[in-house]
Amino acid sequence: MEIFFYWFDHLGVAVFAISGTLLAFRKNMDGFGVIVLAGATAIGGGTIRDLILDLPVFWAHDPTYLYTIIAAAVLTIFWLRLRDYIHQKTLLIADAIGVAFFTVMGAQKALMADFPAIICVTMGTITACFGGMIRDVLARDVPMVLKSELYATTCIVGASVYVLLAAFNPLLALFIGGLTTLLLRLAAIRWQWHLPVFQEHSDSR
Amino acid sequence: MEIFFYWFDHLGVAVFAISGTLLAFRKNMDGFGVIVLAGATAIGGGTIRDLILDLPVFWAHDPTYLYTIIAAAVLTIFWLRLRDYIHQKTLLIADAIGVAFFTVMGAQKALMADFPAIICVTMGTITACFGGMIRDVLARDVPMVLKSELYATTCIVGASVYVLLAAFNPLLALFIGGLTTLLLRLAAIRWQWHLPVFQEHSDSR
Amino acid sequence: MEIFFYWFDHLGVAVFAISGTLLAFRKNMDGFGVIVLAGATAIGGGTIRDLILDLPVFWAHDPTYLYTIIAAAVLTIFWLRLRDYIHQKTLLIADAIGVAFFTVMGAQKALMADFPAIICVTMGTITACFGGMIRDVLARDVPMVLKSELYATTCIVGASVYVLLAAFNPLLALFIGGLTTLLLRLAAIRWQWHLPVFQEHSDSR
Repeated sequence: MEIFFYWFDHLGVAVFAISGTLLAFRKNMDGFGVIVLAGATAIGGGTIRDLILDLPVFWAHDPTYLYTIIAAAVLTIFWLRLRDYIHQKTLLIADAIGVAFFTVMGAQKALMADFPAIICVTMGTITACFGGMIRDVLARDVPMVLKSELYATTCIVGASVYVLLAAFNPLLALFIGGLTTLLLRLAAIRWQWHLPVFQEHSDSR
Repeated sequence: MEIFFYWFDHLGVAVFAISGTLLAFRKNMDGFGVIVLAGATAIGGGTIRDLILDLPVFWAHDPTYLYTIIAAAVLTIFWLRLRDYIHQKTLLIADAIGVAFFTVMGAQKALMADFPAIICVTMGTITACFGGMIRDVLARDVPMVLKSELYATTCIVGASVYVLLAAFNPLLALFIGGLTTLLLRLAAIRWQWHLPVFQEHSDSR
Repeated sequence: MEIFFYWFDHLGVAVFAISGTLLAFRKNMDGFGVIVLAGATAIGGGTIRDLILDLPVFWAHDPTYLYTIIAAAVLTIFWLRLRDYIHQKTLLIADAIGVAFFTVMGAQKALMADFPAIICVTMGTITACFGGMIRDVLARDVPMVLKSELYATTCIVGASVYVLLAAFNPLLALFIGGLTTLLLRLAAIRWQWHLPVFQEHSDSR
């Protein structure tokens, strides 16, 4: 079980590293920009979670995570060399998969450490969103989480589903919570679901 | 006394959450953008303070703070719906009140933990300024603290006043320190007080 | 030996504070903007390193570092008043010297705390690069580390040299590692060495 969570976590790290690499590619960055964006996206959110929960930072004693990031970034670069362009949505989809993984893994880590339910949901959201937020700030993009279709809302829903179900079956909760996040996010991208936007001088509502 | 500090702290969190909500509104963000900016402003500075002082992060074990943020953001949104526009200065004033609260509360927390005086002043300033700095970076504004009228200087003065007086009367020191910060900041906004600006090729001085 | 490391560390802090001051000057910031940029550059990277390694943050219990920053910033400002302009490269060179110091000091701190080699190299790089990254994000510049000539790569090489040699002679390793970083970085600035840049629709390669 432990070992299962461990590899699940590595999968999330790899997918987010790919999303960082894709953005660095879009922004014409060099090899190190790739590593910084891939790393910030992949371990930024989890690092902030572990610091706030006062747990040991997950990658500081286990360098395997860094190897995963480097491997994912290098493979992505080779794959990009083989293709002429990247499809508009590739970055969004890689991002969505990473978000789904990290939402449930982040909430699960807080839950294992016996934090209250709303903190677990918050930590799932922070783990999933803050890595991408750092990536976007560094690349001088508007953070995806602040301007695009339903993003963090899907994390809040997915993490809540996980926390509610975890009492019954932790493993099943992980799958259903992650799947909820992923499907909601993909649907939000596909049909451009938005939360109501608040505007000055708004006439509507 | 303890309980008094606790509610004082909640007041500061609420006021900063309002200032984050107002900026999100200005920038036409959606409901989650509101929560992120409100949350980053309200607990960003204190989180950094607690991490650096190696104290438990104040909201991680007490979800009440998160409820305060959500309540303040929601009420602000309803209030904004009732009005056609927000006055230019509303955001500045909400921010000034939050700054006054957090300057003394941040310095007080470091002082209680027996840190040296200059570290207490620094922590008051970090608690008051870094939340708003994160808010502005995320909203892609020039951080208020870096470009506007006397800002952090007022925190340094207010926190110093607090630290000096705290030896005599902690509670009175809290009020005088906070009031000093607030009045200095409001005066700086009103009469546009500036520190000297350093310029390349400057002829003046 | 201990005391030697201590002053070595202060030198790095002072040089990075100068680089922050120069950028604030370029951006026409006021006195507090100078202190924020100087401080963020000088202790930002080391703070993140200490938080991740779960060591006490180096300046929280020793205010001397803050005095060093203030002194370096004030002296730089007086020096700038005496001259009409700053040479284009002054900021780059101050930055390069700071990077060389912090690369080896950061790696050394992780090595003393018995972390694995790749984590030590990563921490050297984080200590050297993240302060400048925060400086550039706050000043709304493209982070130097992401867009310019060989930057973090020189940290990775320098920190690796240090970690490899430290087993034989810690002090010599410190000098050789730092010198490697500095010379590589200066050469990169002089001859504009770049890592290959990844571009969409690239025809070459």
